[in-house]
Formats: sequence, C-alpha cells, structure tokens
Amino acid sequence: MSAPTVQTIETIGGGVATPKGFRAIGVSAGIKARPGALDLALLISDQPATAAAVFTTNLAQAAPVTVSREHLARSGGVARAVVVNSGCANACTGESGLRDARTMATETAQLVGCPVEQVLVASTGVIGVALPIDKIQQGLPVAFHALDTSDGALAAQAIMTTDPFPKEAAARVGINGRDITIGGMAKGAGMIEPMMATMLGFVTTDAGVPKALLDRALRDVVNDTFNAITVDGDSSTNDCVMILANGASGVTVDESSYDAFADALRSVCVRLALGIVRGGEGATKLVTVNVTGANSSTEARKTAKAIANSLLVKTAIHGGDPNWGRLVAVAGRAGVGFDLDKAAVMIGPIVLFKDGRPYDENAPEAASYLKNTDIVVTVDLGVGHASSTVWTCDLSAEYVRINADYRT
Amino acid sequence: MSAPTVQTIETIGGGVATPKGFRAIGVSAGIKARPGALDLALLISDQPATAAAVFTTNLAQAAPVTVSREHLARSGGVARAVVVNSGCANACTGESGLRDARTMATETAQLVGCPVEQVLVASTGVIGVALPIDKIQQGLPVAFHALDTSDGALAAQAIMTTDPFPKEAAARVGINGRDITIGGMAKGAGMIEPMMATMLGFVTTDAGVPKALLDRALRDVVNDTFNAITVDGDSSTNDCVMILANGASGVTVDESSYDAFADALRSVCVRLALGIVRGGEGATKLVTVNVTGANSSTEARKTAKAIANSLLVKTAIHGGDPNWGRLVAVAGRAGVGFDLDKAAVMIGPIVLFKDGRPYDENAPEAASYLKNTDIVVTVDLGVGHASSTVWTCDLSAEYVRINADYRT
Repeated sequence: MSAPTVQTIETIGGGVATPKGFRAIGVSAGIKARPGALDLALLISDQPATAAAVFTTNLAQAAPVTVSREHLARSGGVARAVVVNSGCANACTGESGLRDARTMATETAQLVGCPVEQVLVASTGVIGVALPIDKIQQGLPVAFHALDTSDGALAAQAIMTTDPFPKEAAARVGINGRDITIGGMAKGAGMIEPMMATMLGFVTTDAGVPKALLDRALRDVVNDTFNAITVDGDSSTNDCVMILANGASGVTVDESSYDAFADALRSVCVRLALGIVRGGEGATKLVTVNVTGANSSTEARKTAKAIANSLLVKTAIHGGDPNWGRLVAVAGRAGVGFDLDKAAVMIGPIVLFKDGRPYDENAPEAASYLKNTDIVVTVDLGVGHASSTVWTCDLSAEYVRINADYRT
Repeated sequence: MSAPTVQTIETIGGGVATPKGFRAIGVSAGIKARPGALDLALLISDQPATAAAVFTTNLAQAAPVTVSREHLARSGGVARAVVVNSGCANACTGESGLRDARTMATETAQLVGCPVEQVLVASTGVIGVALPIDKIQQGLPVAFHALDTSDGALAAQAIMTTDPFPKEAAARVGINGRDITIGGMAKGAGMIEPMMATMLGFVTTDAGVPKALLDRALRDVVNDTFNAITVDGDSSTNDCVMILANGASGVTVDESSYDAFADALRSVCVRLALGIVRGGEGATKLVTVNVTGANSSTEARKTAKAIANSLLVKTAIHGGDPNWGRLVAVAGRAGVGFDLDKAAVMIGPIVLFKDGRPYDENAPEAASYLKNTDIVVTVDLGVGHASSTVWTCDLSAEYVRINADYRT
C-alpha cells in the first residue's frame, strides 16, 4: 500500500503561451490614443481546447460578454482562439456594438480557420463608445501573422488599460508522473479609471480536462481568487475569466487528479488576482482581510467584503492607523452573526480587541506593523468556526484624484 | 360640504427648545481635549413626554444605546430628559461602559426629579475609550442649572464631534385650527472621523401624540430622511434618533391629523439629515440620487444606496465628470430588476443614456451642470414604476486625508 502522494506545485515564469500548444501575441491596432500602444491581443490553441468561462453578473452586460456566452453555448465549450482589445469596452453600445463584437469573432475565425463559435471575444476600456471595428479588422491579420513569434508577455501588455504593470503567472504540477502546465494573464486596476472598467483573466493549460471538471475547477478557483478581491466594490459590465485546456501535454485530468489540477490553477489565479489588487489605482498596500469565527463561510465572506470595501478601514490602513473600532463597527453592521463580547480584532499578529475589551496598550506595536506594504487584518466574529479571506488595497487621495479627473 | 384642508407647514428658526415646554442647554464638561469646548447637552421636557426612538442596527451596540432601549421599554415610552455627551462614544467598553451610561442617567434623574427610566442617554465620539464619568458628574449640575437660560443652539453645538456646523431645524403646522411646533437637532459628519462615529438626532414637539402614532411617525419619517442619507456607507455603534412629544400646545394628534404631523416632522428631519450630508467630511457637493422605473420601492432604494455609495460615482461627481457609464454599471450590479435597453440616465435635467444608446452630445451641458454644489442624478431602471430618493455627498481627496490621519 503506497502513501498518498503530495503534489508539489512549481511556480514558473511565463504566461498564457507557456503551456504546450498555445501561442499568444499583442499588437498595436491604433485603438488607444497613444501611438504604438499595444491594444489587440490574440491567443490561439493549435488544437481545439475545452473552454470554460465565468462572466460578470452585472445586468448591464457588454456586447463581447453576450457574444462569448453564445459561442460557448453553441460550441459546447470548445475554443480555438480568444481575441481581446483594450481601449474600448464595447459596452452600452446597443445593436451596433453587438454587430462589432460578432465581426471581431468572425474575422478571427477566418484567420484561424475555425468555426466562429470557437472564438471567444473580450473588450476593456471606455464604456459607451463605439468600437473602432475598422482598426480591429486591420490589426487582426497583423496579430495573426505575428503569432510566429508568440510572446505571452506582449499579449499581457495588450490587454492593459490603466494597469500599472502586466499580470502573468504560470505553474507546473505532476499528474500521474507527468507534468502539466498552467499559464495565465489578467488585467484590471479596480473598476476605476474614468469610464474604464473591467477585470479580465485568461488561463491556459496543456492538460486535457473534461468540460464538467473544467467548469467546476474554474468556478471553485475563481470564487477564492478573482471573486475574493476588491479595489472599490464596483463590478464592471465586461468582467470575465476564461480558461482553455487543450490536452497538448498528453495528460488528462480526472477525478483522482482533480485536486492537484485545481490547486495548481488556484496558485496561478491567486497570483493574477493579487496582481490586480497591488496595481489598484492609488494603492500603496495589499491588505489581506481574514474573517474567522463566523457561522458560515458565506457570512465570513460577506463580512470580509464589507471590511474590504469600508472607506473607513481602507483610509485607516492607508494612514497607518491601527483603528480597530472601525473593524468592529463594520463587522457589527455586516448583517451576519456577531457577538461583541466574544469578538476579536488583530492587526497582523497583534491583538487590539478581545473578550469585549480594548487592548490599546498594543496600539503602538500595531501602528509600527502598519508601516509594511503587505498588511493582514483578522476579525473573529465570535459565533462559529467558519472563515473566509478577501484581498483589497488601501484608499489613497491619489485614488480620488485619478477618478475625479474629467475623462476628456 | 367643505373642501379638504391643505396643511401649510411653516419653516421657522430654532431647534429642540423651540416647542413649548422644552428647555435645552450645552456646557463644557471637559470631555473633549480642547478647553471650553461644549461636550455635554441636556434636554428637558417640563412635563412627562411621550417618547419614541430608533437605534442603530449595528450589532456592536454602544452602552448608551442599550440603556436608552431599556429605559424606553421600562417607562412604556415616557421621558422627561435626554442627556448627551460628545467626545467619547462609550462603545466597545464592556461592563464598565454600561455602568457609566447608567450613572449618567441616574444623576440626570436625580437633578430633574424623575424616575431614572424617564431619562434617555446618548454618546458620540471615540470608540473603545472609557467615558470620563467624573467629568460628566461634575458637568451635569452645571448644565441643569444653566437650563434657566435655555438655549437649543448651545445644545446643538454640544453634541457635535467633527461636524463643520451645528444642525437645527424647526417647523410649525396648524392642527384643528391650532399651531403645534416641532424642533430638532442632529449631529454627524458621516461615520468618518478617525475612531469617531455616530449620527444622532433629537426631535421635540409640543403636540400630544399617542405612543403608537409617535412610533409610526418616527419610523415613517426616519426611513425617508435619516435612513436615506449616506456619506460613506458605514453605520455606527451609537446611531439613534429620539423624539419627545409633551402635549404642551394643548393639541393632540390623532389619525385625522396624522398626515399633517408626519409631514411637518418630515420637513424638520429632512433638513437635519441634509445638514449631515452637506457637512460630510471633505464634502463639496450635496447629491440627490433618484432611482425611478424600479420593480418596487425596496429595489429602488437598494439601487439608490448602491449609487450613493459608489466610489466611482462619488469621485466622478467630485471631479465634475458626467460619467453616466458608472451610473449604468452600478445599477446593473445592484441586484435588482434592470433592463439595459429601457434604462435611462439623467444628470440634472440632461439625458445622457436612453433606449440603449448614449447621448454623448449632451456631455458638455452635463459637465457644466455639475459645477453646481447641489446635484441631482436620476437613473431609470426601465422595469417598473417604483422610485426612491437617497442623498449623499461627493468623495474628495480631503476625505481621505482626514480619515487617514493617525488618530493619536
């Protein structure tokens, strides 16, 4: 009888083009105002890949979201290509916007030589402005031919809007003695540039993953990663995370290897998600919000989100103020089970409130801890045993300056 | 047959001491650090008054909230006095905090000569710090004897924390041919001073109002006024609004005069509530958020609150940016019925989005409108006929500076 194998997940360099059988590129199509700015990304799987996606729950849904949903349904979850533009969200653009998104997919399908429903589309940028579809039509062949020099890093740059840096991550894990690779890229700096929006994530793997398992893995992982971050509490018209699994490694994931695959996927997605928070506009600190002692993980998550979106908490952390009263006050109004006499607050490892009484003597130590750029705050609700973690950034005057500037 | 009488509500100067039979004063008890700062307010009804109150729904409930709830229950809704201190919230202070709040009530009852349960208590200021009960014990007789020179304006000043100005309002309305008067004071600048908190409102009337009608009027009116404002989306450990009706006018409100009374009460409370928003920390604009075309007033209110608390919306208005895409995006993610093709957005009277398409040609006019200090935005959800109004302020870099400053 053999001991259970603990899978080692190896963090590696690279991005969406790192797994076998994927190529990616970013080019300048002239959508962004700045000459030469990369704004059109193309990601190709050399063979049809199993595809899954999660989309924004916002009812004001952008045209590319509508089209990608349709294509996934029509293809039964098979994709050959993903085409993404930055500089224009193609959201709130009515019938003509929908037409433009379809054109983007059709032209990509012709270049790749695949059915149109095997092309997924995403856009990010200004809301309510028509897509310059002629520029995309001119840029697409350029991007397609540049795939010979596949460069995931250029694709990661081409999907950026106000992101201060590109977000890429990759990992390797052994399944049944053979390696599979997962790579990803993401963009988003909150939903916060004037009239800009959107968090986008694209993940590839050379594992073969049956559709049902791929859906399950994406939903499980997104819940703990992309859905566990918040910059400003707003969710956009264009948000999506897509994953393509092409099987080029020759390894197929099944129930017995699901956990290893999902863990490796999580390790990629969490790095992409934290990159978004670190690059949040005006952000100077990455804040991990742990809520423990909750009645359920749903209540823990709800409280953690409320804390992570509290202006009072975010400004206090920005200012290095170990202001535990604000954390207690948010926990108390979060609409979940909470017992003030059993609740506790820690900033880093330092207890500031416990058993119904303040530990203000620890405030100087906590203030010193808050000078770090990576901050952990923990609130125990004192009623149960469930927990949840959410990541956010601090709120700076810079955030206000960026978002108050008139967009034109 | 006589025509139905339209009651005219007359806005008058004054505050809580304006209705007959009420006296109020504010003194300096030395609770606040600044010498001579007013920090202890006493409000007396010369005869027992019917009393009603609404309290914070925050589960982290401050000691004075616990005591006032108890007293209202034990007295059956009768009060002679309200005692309020600023400079310390007496929240998260455990058993000793509860003892201090009881002492504050007991000493007031002895001075006034009434049962202790006829005294209501409120505190506002720093969370998690013990009340300097000795200073309050010394200040209370001073306040009581100063009541001879009753001055509602001094009481309104004594309940302030970071408020840039005191909030007072009063109104007169004829009921059955005789005038009754309603007066009020409030404090609150959001829940936003470092470690400060609390929105407090106190209303008096010389109408006689049966307990059941008083409760109903307070709840109805608070829902449309104090509960319809938001500065930063946080709710405090100490929030409360109290009303005392002493009947000194000789007029008793009944079902037939309920609407006139409630409308006059609303006119007082809305002015107090808007004063809080105008005085929100860092605020430069008062923003009225109208949501129309909703499935229900609850859904309309939920959307209006989401818009009023959106950092994206608040910063755009601060910057004078007619950024209708942010309003659509918030409406779409508010978790209510919404139809993008039938939705509409107006900034002031100017249509920027309607019938699924942008009206960007109106943006310059909207930008010009946004230079005003009183701004109205309207979002029609395009699904029904219900509506709701919420008031908020803009979000400035000054807000962040104030709240990021280390409190010590």
